Formats: sequence, structure tokens, C-alpha cells
Amino acid sequence: MSLLVMKFGGSSVGDAERMKRVAKRIADRKREGHRCVVVVSAMGDTTDELIDLSKQIIDGTPSAREMDMLLTTGEQVSAALLSMALHRLGEQSVSFTGWQAGIHTEDVHAKARITDIRPERVIEALEHGKIVIVAGFQGLTEEGEITTLGRGGSDTTAVALAAAVQADLCEIYTDVDGVYSTDPRIVQAARKLKEISYDEMLELAHLGAAVLHPRAVEYAKQYQVKLIVRSSFTNNEGTCVKEEAAMEQGIVVRGIAFDKHISRITILGVPEKPGQLAAIFTALAEENIDVDIIVQGGVRDGWADTSFTLGTAELDRARSVLRRIQPDIGFQDLRTKSELVKVSIVGSGMISFPGVAAKMFSTLAEAEVSINTVSTSEIKVSCVIEGDKLHDVVRALHTAFGLDTGEQAFVGGPSERR
Amino acid sequence: MSLLVMKFGGSSVGDAERMKRVAKRIADRKREGHRCVVVVSAMGDTTDELIDLSKQIIDGTPSAREMDMLLTTGEQVSAALLSMALHRLGEQSVSFTGWQAGIHTEDVHAKARITDIRPERVIEALEHGKIVIVAGFQGLTEEGEITTLGRGGSDTTAVALAAAVQADLCEIYTDVDGVYSTDPRIVQAARKLKEISYDEMLELAHLGAAVLHPRAVEYAKQYQVKLIVRSSFTNNEGTCVKEEAAMEQGIVVRGIAFDKHISRITILGVPEKPGQLAAIFTALAEENIDVDIIVQGGVRDGWADTSFTLGTAELDRARSVLRRIQPDIGFQDLRTKSELVKVSIVGSGMISFPGVAAKMFSTLAEAEVSINTVSTSEIKVSCVIEGDKLHDVVRALHTAFGLDTGEQAFVGGPSERR
Repeated sequence: MSLLVMKFGGSSVGDAERMKRVAKRIADRKREGHRCVVVVSAMGDTTDELIDLSKQIIDGTPSAREMDMLLTTGEQVSAALLSMALHRLGEQSVSFTGWQAGIHTEDVHAKARITDIRPERVIEALEHGKIVIVAGFQGLTEEGEITTLGRGGSDTTAVALAAAVQADLCEIYTDVDGVYSTDPRIVQAARKLKEISYDEMLELAHLGAAVLHPRAVEYAKQYQVKLIVRSSFTNNEGTCVKEEAAMEQGIVVRGIAFDKHISRITILGVPEKPGQLAAIFTALAEENIDVDIIVQGGVRDGWADTSFTLGTAELDRARSVLRRIQPDIGFQDLRTKSELVKVSIVGSGMISFPGVAAKMFSTLAEAEVSINTVSTSEIKVSCVIEGDKLHDVVRALHTAFGLDTGEQAFVGGPSERR
Repeated sequence: MSLLVMKFGGSSVGDAERMKRVAKRIADRKREGHRCVVVVSAMGDTTDELIDLSKQIIDGTPSAREMDMLLTTGEQVSAALLSMALHRLGEQSVSFTGWQAGIHTEDVHAKARITDIRPERVIEALEHGKIVIVAGFQGLTEEGEITTLGRGGSDTTAVALAAAVQADLCEIYTDVDGVYSTDPRIVQAARKLKEISYDEMLELAHLGAAVLHPRAVEYAKQYQVKLIVRSSFTNNEGTCVKEEAAMEQGIVVRGIAFDKHISRITILGVPEKPGQLAAIFTALAEENIDVDIIVQGGVRDGWADTSFTLGTAELDRARSVLRRIQPDIGFQDLRTKSELVKVSIVGSGMISFPGVAAKMFSTLAEAEVSINTVSTSEIKVSCVIEGDKLHDVVRALHTAFGLDTGEQAFVGGPSERR
């Protein structure tokens, strides 16, 4: 008999019928002999409707504390209804708010981090043979304030609870079948991955494959929580996210991710003196502008050029910050370029195989795509390119790295890795 | 500078515009120099919508515990939005759930009684100059379970909080102007009362004037909380509910209340032996059938007749209970009569003035209405009559007891009361 944490997202419990179907799935797991803790998000559009209500009340940004008070009701409603749906099937269950489940967070609203879980009530209810339903996305500060965990918060609730109750497995039920080698809407040959490492999943999550929230993956890696991402609408096997060492084989490239709507800003003629870069990027950070890849050119005659990429939605704000600090920094001019995209190959196997980046560059060259900016980590290579050829490029890379068939991907295979 | 508790019902905060209007009213009170604690109900139809959702999930009666988890979100949403609406007006405010406001209840779901209020957070926020918004209708058990207070629960929250923080006044804002001498939809001459005693209000509330919940009035009487019932849509002065002794004058009849849809059951030929009445009314109570006026006729030749009134909606259930126990009790037959109404005159002054009941009976006789059943207490006389003449009777009583003008009501005036 194992202990499962099962997490269902908003679309999985979008209406009463779906709620009942989810209850059936949970009851089946229980009848298989498992003990079940269930984490649930707000139903379908509830969160958007609550945000809309707040906008009818106040024009500007509402207080983050009051938004947390408002939004946490959505998950509480889901949890109560899901518990009723289980009663309907003759199961014993009990719903808890985040604080009732002992989820404590730091004293920050809208994006609090979990500091501590005290799952006594959850464990007690399990010991009484009950299915425990926990409202996701929320916690409580030491001062008794209700907080939310930010985007993907219910994933984080599930993983953190799984760690706290020492669950054997944390199942993330969602509206897709699992993690794919790339976006199946673009590459027909995209394959569902049987397994992926925490680090690879982190890179893919950050790079735009919105299956699982990065914070939840980080948490899972930290506490070694075994995750399964699977569909709440089918019985298909999902994708297992786990430690690299526990995996069957070291694949060079596991998947291809991409971000649309990237822009680049180039700051021309920055006078060369210490602290200039820090001043520029501190000013941007203070306005919460998320800068991605920074490229600092060499210094010529005491002047340097610096460029960076960012989401196109933040381009205007970034430009006005830079114009504001131009007199202090003394740079000469700004250039901006939009309609760029970032495409990334991810795979923990590439640590051991040189030539992966080169193969990516030559694939792009064959597609007659020029590379704007490059960024690499131990397990990924990202290239910023013109946006118009994105789909062709993703398909070409998918083929080049053997992902269409799942064979060529092992540039040599694990035995040659040393 | 006084401390006010202000309570707004669901229709007062039915949509964003009304919510903003309520916020303006609160801000005005604050700017007059008062410290304000605000208790708020769920917006308009929210509670009904949540109940409807639960019905889509489960056919039978849902778990009372999970219903409490579900329904308490409605008040939490209102409280958060009202706090935002106050921020919009530049006021400092903070919303609390019932448990955050320290409202503790007994361990019963759907109709818990408040056992204890620990208002430390409310007081601390007030000391920081904040307007405190509290979600009505809810509390927490010692075991950390979320409970609701049943119908009229937000009124009770307001009164109990007013007692706990020692407020100078508790204002109940509603969709009517105050407490009237009778229903203004039926008697054009109905007047708004300037004041009414707790006991009179209790009788009126129980008798069908649904302005203020009886439990809230009981609580107010117990803790001597001064209440004002007033409209949230106008600036009209409301009705003050307070201790009899503090009132300006002892009015004989303060108001006329009535209940429609009354039925009477007569049990014929009950064999005279001890415990028969107890057996009958215990059986009815066990089915939660609310019996109103009981009339026990004399015993003749070892047989007695017993009749009682009850709401017509419960008639069928009551009849089947009685048929079930007929073999045990051994009574001879049942008669039922529907389409009755109960009309009551209420006034604490009638203790000192004999002849009030007689005047009521003669007024009914003049209207050619025969009286079916009578029940009296120290401050009310109730008559059950045929329903078809109800409106005429109420109008006639309103005139006869001087309520049309507010003059004749003092049958002598206070100086003659002893």
C-alpha cells in the first residue's frame, strides 16, 4: 500500500461533470489500495472571474494581501466540492484549506514560498482511512495571514505535501498526456517522453513548456519527490520526472523548447568604467523587468556595447527605464529589435558530448537562419533567431537530434559517456 | 470618537457598484471620526450559486462540514472586495475571515453558536487606524474546523463582535429603512419605529418581520449591545433596538406582525393517561417539525382533544408522523385545517395595561372574523384566524391601536403605568 499525492489543475475540475470524473479516478486509486492526498486548483475560470470582480472594484493594482484573501476562495470551493463528489461515491474524505493542511509560507503576498509544512491533520485523517483534499496554491504566515504561492502554486503545494508526508509518488494530472520532446502542435513527430530528469524538466519549464511549474520541479529535486505528469482525461501512462541517476539512459537531447515574442535591446557606446553594467541592470530589476540573455561586447577606445534579450511585452518599459538613466550612464544610443524567438535544446547527456552546440548551429545554418544571440548551460543551448522560421527550425532540430524516432538521440549511448 | 460595528447584508453588496457605495458610506463614518469594524455577508446570489454547484455534484444532502467549507468562501470574497473598495477611496483597511477575527464556535456545522470571541487582531488593526472588515456568518471550532452560524448568521457576527470589542453602537444596514409598525406593503399607514425594545424586537422577529435575526437580537439583549437597523441605500434615520428601560415611553402596542400559511391539526379522542402529550410532541420534534401554539382541551369521559398550529409546509410530514404513532397513542382521529394565518400585536407596554387582548378580540369581531386559536405572552397576543381577511384585519388593528398616527398607542401614557 503506497501513499500518493495527486494534483488536479483547474481545467481537470472545470465543471461538475469533470469534478465527478476526477472523483472517480481518485476513488479508483483508493480502491487499488493506495492512501490518497489530493491537491486541487480553482475550477476552470474561477480565478479569472475573481480577478475580474476585483477590477470592477478598483482601477489600479489591488492590495496583494486582499487579492490573496480573494483568490484563495477559489481553491477552497474546489476542495469542498471534490470532497462532496467523493462522498457521492461512498468514499470517506475531508477537505482542508492550505492552513488547515499545515502549509506555512514566508510573509509575502501573491508569490510566497513555502517555509514549512506541519501535516498533522493530513496524517491524522489518512490514519482514519480518509481521502484528504487540500486546497492548492495557498498557505499561512506565522502571523496568521493568508498567502498565495504565485503561478503554478498548486503544483508546488502538491510536491511540498508529498515531501512532507513522505509520499511514494506525486501525480500531476493535467490537460496534456505528459512532457513531449517538443510542442506537438508544431512538430507532428513530437514524442511523449517516458522519463526526464529534474534538471532537464527545469530547463524545459523555464523555456516555455508550461506543463509543470519550475518551482515545483525545484522543490521535487530538492526533496527527491518522484513526479508523474499525466492526463486527467485519459489513462495513458505519463512522463516520470526523477533523478538523472535513476534513469535508464543518458539521452543527449531530451527535448526542444521555444519562447516566442522575444526582443533584444542593444545599448551602444557605454563609457567604460566600473559599475556601469551593475547600474543598468539594477535599474531594470527595480522595475521588475526580467532580462534573459546578456551579451557584453569587447571595449574599444573606452566604449563598450551591451545587448540583452527580454520578453517583447516588457520592451517599452525597459526602453523608458534606460532613457531615464541615460544621463547618468552616459551611453550614446539604444537600438531595439523585436519579432525574435528563442529556441533551446535541452538534455543532461550533452555534458558528456562535445559538438552538440556545433550540430545545432549547423542545423540552423542549413535552414538559412542566422543566429542572433547564443546562451549555453551544462544541459542546454539556446539560440535567439528571427521569428519567421521558428516552426521549420524546431522541426529540423527535432529531426537532427533524432527525436522523431527516439533512436539517434544517443550520440554513442551511455556506455561511451565517460 | 466612538467605536462602531457596521453590518451590511448580501443585497447591500450585491454588485461592484453597490460595494463601492457601501465603501463610501463606511469611509464617511470613518471621516466623521469613528473607528469602524464592518461585518459583511456574501454578495447577492453568491450563496445560492454555491448551493446550486453543490447540487450539481451530489443529489442528496451534502456533508454539513463540506457545505460550511464551501459557503464561507462567499463572505471571504465580499470582505476582500470591500477592503479593496476602501483602498480605492484612500482608506486603510484590512479584511479578516471569521477565524482571523477570533470568532470561535461550538463544534456543530451549518448552525453553530458562537462560544467565544478573541478579537486581538481586530483591536490591533483598529489601533493602527485601520477599518476592519470581517467575513460574517462564520467561525472556527477549537479543533480548527470552519463552521457557519446558520440563517441570519452575519447579524449575529456583528452583534457578537460589537459586544467583544465593546462597541458604542452596532449598525445593521439592510434593504429596508428600519422596523415598521407593520408590513408597509399591506398597511399604507405603517410607520417606521424610532425605537423598539429587545423583547419586542424578538417577538416581531419570531413573528415574521424578517429584518433582524432573533439570535442576533437575543445576543444583543444578553450583552446590552445597542442596535440600529437602517437602510444601506438611503440616509434615513433607522430604528434603534435597545433596553426597555432606556426608552422614551412605554408604548402599549409597538407593532403588528403576521405569519401566513398556518395550518392546524386537531387530534381527537386521545385516551387520558400520563405522558400522552409528551409522546406526541416528542415524535414531532424528532422529525424537526416546528409546532407553534398548542391547545389542550379538557378531559371528558377519559378522552381529550389536542390541537396545535404549524407551518402549512410541514403539514403532510406532521400528519404522517401522527398516523405512524396512532396505534401506540390510541387516539381516535385527526382533523386538519389549512389556509389559516396568525396575526400578533406586540408591545412591552401591554404588561401594565389590561384589556389589550379584549380590544384585539373586539376589533376582530367588528371585522366579522372568528378566532380559531389564541396565544399570549407578557408582551404579545397572537390570534390564528381564517386567511382570507388578513389584510383587512391588520389594517383594522393598526388603526385600533393608534399606530396610524402614533398617538392613541399610549393608552394613558407612561405616567399611568404603575
